Amino acid sequence: MQTSTIRKRFGLRVRELRQASGLSQEAFADKCGFARSYMSRIERGAANPSLDAVETLAISLGVPVAALFDEGR
Amino acid sequence: MQTSTIRKRFGLRVRELRQASGLSQEAFADKCGFARSYMSRIERGAANPSLDAVETLAISLGVPVAALFDEGR
Repeated sequence: MQTSTIRKRFGLRVRELRQASGLSQEAFADKCGFARSYMSRIERGAANPSLDAVETLAISLGVPVAALFDEGR
Repeated sequence: MQTSTIRKRFGLRVRELRQASGLSQEAFADKCGFARSYMSRIERGAANPSLDAVETLAISLGVPVAALFDEGR
């Protein structure tokens, strides 16, 4: 089964913003209150996070939720 | 427990775009392949849809995913 496009794009965007923030994946997972394995799956596009998880990621990154779906890049 | 803000805003946005498309909630649920009760819960902010469900909604509405999180309105 192919990885969903939206999951993949979303994961790459989270990774990009997380790296720009200077946090390691582990530190960012802790900040979100997520398991490190779950954060790894999110960034790889393997997880299918819910709206609530999306909101937690946006808040922890300090960006509007829409920034995680920015398709104009 | 309060309804999550993101769920509520997302549900209102889906409803707004669905109504603008001229589809009833039932017809739109059928188009998405979702149960009608699930669509009702999404629009009321009671459901916590996953990224995959968000993508299905955007495709069925004919809008970019980011349009469902437009905070500039």
